[in-house]
Amino acid sequence: MSSELKTLSQTMLAALNEEMRSVLQSGEEQPDSFYGMIHYHMGWVNEQLQPVQVYPGKQIRPLLCLLTCQAAGGDWQQALPAAAAIEILHNFSLVHDDIEDASPTRRGRQTMWQIWGIEQAINTGDAMFALAHLAMSRLLDCGVPAPIVVQALRRFDETCVRLTQGQHADMDFEKRDGVTVAEYMAMIEGKTAVLVSLAAELGARIAGAEETAVAHYAQFGLELGLAFQVKDDILGIWGDEALTGKSAATDITTKKKTLPVLYGLEHSAELRQLYTQNSTDENFVSQAIQHLDTCGARAFTESKASAYSEGSFDHLQAAQPHGAAALALHELTNMLLQRNS
Amino acid sequence: MSSELKTLSQTMLAALNEEMRSVLQSGEEQPDSFYGMIHYHMGWVNEQLQPVQVYPGKQIRPLLCLLTCQAAGGDWQQALPAAAAIEILHNFSLVHDDIEDASPTRRGRQTMWQIWGIEQAINTGDAMFALAHLAMSRLLDCGVPAPIVVQALRRFDETCVRLTQGQHADMDFEKRDGVTVAEYMAMIEGKTAVLVSLAAELGARIAGAEETAVAHYAQFGLELGLAFQVKDDILGIWGDEALTGKSAATDITTKKKTLPVLYGLEHSAELRQLYTQNSTDENFVSQAIQHLDTCGARAFTESKASAYSEGSFDHLQAAQPHGAAALALHELTNMLLQRNS
Repeated sequence: MSSELKTLSQTMLAALNEEMRSVLQSGEEQPDSFYGMIHYHMGWVNEQLQPVQVYPGKQIRPLLCLLTCQAAGGDWQQALPAAAAIEILHNFSLVHDDIEDASPTRRGRQTMWQIWGIEQAINTGDAMFALAHLAMSRLLDCGVPAPIVVQALRRFDETCVRLTQGQHADMDFEKRDGVTVAEYMAMIEGKTAVLVSLAAELGARIAGAEETAVAHYAQFGLELGLAFQVKDDILGIWGDEALTGKSAATDITTKKKTLPVLYGLEHSAELRQLYTQNSTDENFVSQAIQHLDTCGARAFTESKASAYSEGSFDHLQAAQPHGAAALALHELTNMLLQRNS
Repeated sequence: MSSELKTLSQTMLAALNEEMRSVLQSGEEQPDSFYGMIHYHMGWVNEQLQPVQVYPGKQIRPLLCLLTCQAAGGDWQQALPAAAAIEILHNFSLVHDDIEDASPTRRGRQTMWQIWGIEQAINTGDAMFALAHLAMSRLLDCGVPAPIVVQALRRFDETCVRLTQGQHADMDFEKRDGVTVAEYMAMIEGKTAVLVSLAAELGARIAGAEETAVAHYAQFGLELGLAFQVKDDILGIWGDEALTGKSAATDITTKKKTLPVLYGLEHSAELRQLYTQNSTDENFVSQAIQHLDTCGARAFTESKASAYSEGSFDHLQAAQPHGAAALALHELTNMLLQRNS
């Protein structure tokens, strides 16, 4: 990590977490049962609502928002409410996703619905959604002009609708065959990329950047999100077990419909035939990977990832970021896209 | 119904429904599966996503918002986005409440989760929550100044947090004994009254009313909501079966913890003893009602309802509404509070 990224991210993320604690009313005293569930999910308290320290996740989205604001000529501290809103929104979506996917654990801890039940977890997610909006409205208190705040809120909610459309498609795909590559790309754009895009866009808007620059930052974030997700799909099949920490070819074993698999099902009769099988033993995995390689699924997916990566860097450059934040932004993008774990 | 209320409500609700259809993208064509679920809940299509006409509920909240805007000296058409937002928000909360309460039907139709499953229904509710916010942001397009839009959005989300706190408490109460009258009042304030209050408050804010008048309209709505809910609790026990359309004393048969019952449990050892029983046969019902009458639970609840009703009318008067909308507002309040069904 370059010294720019390291220094800036430490300062920015410390301020971000303070802002989130303020929005989510984390005072000195023990939270009530309502805020307690929220603080549990954020990793601030344990199941008994006693203070703990839990790794909060990478917080890439808020960091992108703050760095973009600075790189676009703004004061990153003015963007703190938007960065907090994006991170709280992301966490809200995890609470509901965990129910929808019936996931018992997240980041090594029990999920909210596992402890307090589905009913309370749905409702607490809703509260976090509302609180994310309240975080946004604090932009006004930071001196951001009201018309920019309204515009930012509108983009925030347009993005929320896209997120739910992505999640709708994702759940729909699990239940049906014949999902196309195009449908899949639209789904990951909604489910993953639009929120990364929003983070960069709002940073630029709050900096008061011109619409051309705002559009470049938004596209930079969008293609970064897409590249990241497509690379994730590659790692899920061809990733190095020692580096990813997951068993190799997890996505084949679980028959997950990721980009290479969908491409393969469109282009390889052998893979289609193989995927009618119920068992996914070692033999299944090795055959599937062979079919994917033969029909060009890996090459296709890698070329997609490269195209999005390049697009992301191109738009970042076109946005003409400046100062230490520009270097940090470039470094962060590199880190996210060069990953092999 | 007076001619003022009838004329105004017909015009206003027609415009409201047009605004909602525009926000929720109800075009000529059949909706996709994502918007289709939303349109189903709104009563615009059936399960096969074909157009139908279903009674949309009373739409009291948006009507209050529009009437208040007009009565406070504004142009009610400018408040249409806020009225639509409030009605969509209310409908979002019904979608999630139906899951949380495991309700199979609403307004004589299957609930969303019954048809499309809990996972999709949670997600579609989230989409409606986001769309309610997008409805709000259209205030700007109606010429409402940006600072008022930001303030209105902030109040909107503060109200959403209160709604989820009310729902949290309501679900919590079902699982424990010893709920106090004070806790119950705080719960119904969150679950019912704050949204009625918001409707009136936003109407006044959009009209550009002064803070004193805004506060009176907000308090008028709050006490109206409380009075309505407390009266509902009375009807749930002492309501006339022929008028309510429900079997008499439903809330006793289901042992629902409404205001008279909680007051009774605090003040009558006999009722506490009776409520340890598991069966709720006819004998149980008649004994319970007798204990409630004896300990003064009915008188207490009726005095509460009267106090809130009077408070509501007092604040409406203090807000100094004018014109035909003022008459209609008065008439609507009367209708809601004089009800015996």
